[in-house]
Amino acid sequence: MTVRRRIGEGRWERTDTLAYKEEGSAPFKAITRQILFDDPRLQCQLRYFEIAPGGYSTLERHEHMHAVMIVRGRGRCLLGDAVHEVELHDLVTIAPLTWHQLRAAPDEPLGFLCMVNNERDRPQLPTPEQLAELRRNPAVAAFLDG
Amino acid sequence: MTVRRRIGEGRWERTDTLAYKEEGSAPFKAITRQILFDDPRLQCQLRYFEIAPGGYSTLERHEHMHAVMIVRGRGRCLLGDAVHEVELHDLVTIAPLTWHQLRAAPDEPLGFLCMVNNERDRPQLPTPEQLAELRRNPAVAAFLDG
Repeated sequence: MTVRRRIGEGRWERTDTLAYKEEGSAPFKAITRQILFDDPRLQCQLRYFEIAPGGYSTLERHEHMHAVMIVRGRGRCLLGDAVHEVELHDLVTIAPLTWHQLRAAPDEPLGFLCMVNNERDRPQLPTPEQLAELRRNPAVAAFLDG
Repeated sequence: MTVRRRIGEGRWERTDTLAYKEEGSAPFKAITRQILFDDPRLQCQLRYFEIAPGGYSTLERHEHMHAVMIVRGRGRCLLGDAVHEVELHDLVTIAPLTWHQLRAAPDEPLGFLCMVNNERDRPQLPTPEQLAELRRNPAVAAFLDG
């Protein structure tokens, strides 16, 4: 496992493409997950997520942080009450308890690295009240509506 | 510091390009360092190193691990007694106490991400005896000679 070669866009030798989450456990669309580095001697994991055109990750928040780097394509990212365009090699810091969601562009995938602590809390989904609060911002509502 | 945009090849907003190491502290050539993510709430750092064509990192080893992903250019990597060609998006796991060095191609830079634990030991340089032992392998000697 010393060198694993890229074998195509967003694909590596000896690296499984996994379901993003259990189907039905949370809202998401057209997203896969790969664990690039996972060793107990490293205190973080490095994962690769890829969202197909028009797809999106779950809108969620948690105590743990995400350190994200875009490595393929283009899309948008919701962080709290702000929407950011993101593209190749942009860096995104997702602070604790910040509502966040990533969406691929309609015509391009969005592939990104995400570094997280090995030990971390489970994501929280918004309550209907929290979602209504988020949607009060028209830019956020437009983002959430795709 | 939520979104930091790429502002050129291997450059980001609000991210300093640093010396790789203190000059004279160890052998290296034409390499810079940037710390992309460094937050005490994350237990690892993500750094970006860029080696100019013909340059190289220090030949060293340490107890801590490196998780490396090539994100620009092309080069070669020594891991223990094996030399590997590396290119865009290849993944390299550098296990504890493995002698390692990265070299950019003669005509291309080599830019790579490196994830490490925040708390880690200092690198060890080879003794003359260890270097002679490494050089006993002709492929390794040719690599070290550039």
